[in-house]
Amino acid sequence: MYPSLRIGIVGASGAVGTTLINVLEKRNFPLSQLSLFGSIKSIGQNKLFNKHIINIQNTTIEDLLKQDIVFFCANSSISQIFIPTLIKSGVKVIDKSSLYRMNPEVPLIIPEINAHILKPHHKLIANPNCSAIVLLMTIAPLIKLGTIKKIIVSTYQSASGGGKALMDELLTQTEQYIQKKEYEPSVAPHPYAFNLFSHNTPINEQGLNEEESKMIEESQKILDNPSLTIIPTCIRVPVLRCHTESITLEFEGLAPSPQKVREAFEEAKGIKIVDDPHTNTFPMPSLAEGQDDILVGRIRLSPHDPSCLQLLACGDQLLKGAALNAVQIAEHLISL
Amino acid sequence: MYPSLRIGIVGASGAVGTTLINVLEKRNFPLSQLSLFGSIKSIGQNKLFNKHIINIQNTTIEDLLKQDIVFFCANSSISQIFIPTLIKSGVKVIDKSSLYRMNPEVPLIIPEINAHILKPHHKLIANPNCSAIVLLMTIAPLIKLGTIKKIIVSTYQSASGGGKALMDELLTQTEQYIQKKEYEPSVAPHPYAFNLFSHNTPINEQGLNEEESKMIEESQKILDNPSLTIIPTCIRVPVLRCHTESITLEFEGLAPSPQKVREAFEEAKGIKIVDDPHTNTFPMPSLAEGQDDILVGRIRLSPHDPSCLQLLACGDQLLKGAALNAVQIAEHLISL
Repeated sequence: MYPSLRIGIVGASGAVGTTLINVLEKRNFPLSQLSLFGSIKSIGQNKLFNKHIINIQNTTIEDLLKQDIVFFCANSSISQIFIPTLIKSGVKVIDKSSLYRMNPEVPLIIPEINAHILKPHHKLIANPNCSAIVLLMTIAPLIKLGTIKKIIVSTYQSASGGGKALMDELLTQTEQYIQKKEYEPSVAPHPYAFNLFSHNTPINEQGLNEEESKMIEESQKILDNPSLTIIPTCIRVPVLRCHTESITLEFEGLAPSPQKVREAFEEAKGIKIVDDPHTNTFPMPSLAEGQDDILVGRIRLSPHDPSCLQLLACGDQLLKGAALNAVQIAEHLISL
Repeated sequence: MYPSLRIGIVGASGAVGTTLINVLEKRNFPLSQLSLFGSIKSIGQNKLFNKHIINIQNTTIEDLLKQDIVFFCANSSISQIFIPTLIKSGVKVIDKSSLYRMNPEVPLIIPEINAHILKPHHKLIANPNCSAIVLLMTIAPLIKLGTIKKIIVSTYQSASGGGKALMDELLTQTEQYIQKKEYEPSVAPHPYAFNLFSHNTPINEQGLNEEESKMIEESQKILDNPSLTIIPTCIRVPVLRCHTESITLEFEGLAPSPQKVREAFEEAKGIKIVDDPHTNTFPMPSLAEGQDDILVGRIRLSPHDPSCLQLLACGDQLLKGAALNAVQIAEHLISL
């Protein structure tokens, strides 16, 4: 156990890093010291934590080695530079980047689903992709209801998945669009104001972009089912910070009834049902923003194919999709 | 044949009506007179057609009876008031509303797909739902390549499907959001700025909203295949005037190869392939806006289920989704 935890956050000025500071505070995470690390660019910035002003300092291995747990909320190249040394020296690391997620030695954890595989000897734990988290939080409670043959999912992903820079670009471009000013995309490869586009990650020879590959591979790893068939399409939409997913689950034989599905969701942790056909109120970003839970709804069977269950899910990409999940992992880690 | 066609447009001040005027001009539609009709609210407004200013006049049956062809670009209740009298008197009507679409006596036409069922005696022709048009333009060329078992489609529908009022609401709300002002949705039931929501039409006892029912029923009618299985999810996204669709086609046995699919699209009319994985350029609203063609791309097979072909499609809801298709119907009608 850790009587007085020294916690570090790498990437503290970014969207996830900033949210992580808030989540630690809100959940009253038992820490004795919080250190914030950033790139040279972020030095001089500061963040408020429990009414204390904390300056963002340059990321050095010397300072990181003074921590008990470090959250990495930067990109894979930063993780690659520091993490190997840290874990060798006994510092525990929770990495939000994709670098180690598919490493068989590294647990990839959504606490509600597979916290049981976390053991005291684990030094490095990977935090899953945000789209995978929204999908898995939704389907995990349903696995016991039947055999899922395939999962067809189309995402409606927000700017926050591309970090603060992409959120800023969406806001700025939209403002310029409304003012009828010319603008040139710089973070995204395509116009973003009132536009949407296929997720702009490299496409492999099978035709999957990286986001889609992550959804498939990470889901198979987390559910410990390497033959699970996921058929994803990942799309970026002009929304700021919540990912929505249109999910069709095809079961062997008849799909479970909406009533059974609702009961399974009611028993599940981290899930909130939002499903009111009379007012057309279903999971959507305006309801999910700032919420810890993944919202699920529009629970229905296809009238033309009773093997198919359809759902909408929506989650705050910065919370359960990233920072909250990482803090939940840390909470489990220190409880072992 | 009509040597000198008198054309009327009901709902001329709306988004579709305005686009229709432009399409008639651009395609040099052979008309001798264009009359524009609107509600009391629109009287006094005018529109430019071939450099002539045309005033919008009140919609009266007397004036409509003076036309050879009338386009109805208003809602079903307006269609219901005027269309029965008009067709009894020999005026030809092309109706964009959903009122008559499923009437077995009324042809429901996408000219590229089923113009052949149009006969000279037809007085009333229905223009399909915009989401159905984007879907059907995309799948019709592929039907000859195999037996489609089911179609799973998630839509990313623009504001224009809700008319000019919803487009204005999206712009106004977004501006207010950026200026951090409070706003109250009035046209849509939910916030629309940087938000998305399940299509806000009534939901039937099977759990389908009206838009989804239309996609299913109209597709079955247009393709003359009442047992076609379509599993739709219709979502409104904060985009102004183009509908995007994420489409998964499950075939009996192996799906056709992407190469064969490309060839079928190249032969098809009204389709443009936009499919460049190297620059991540695929169908999207910023490319589809103002285009007559439906853009198709991200043509790929699921690596985990070779019976599943995946596609993205995007079309300008106001053009091929509405006004252009209606004018194409009229062109066929006068060529009979």
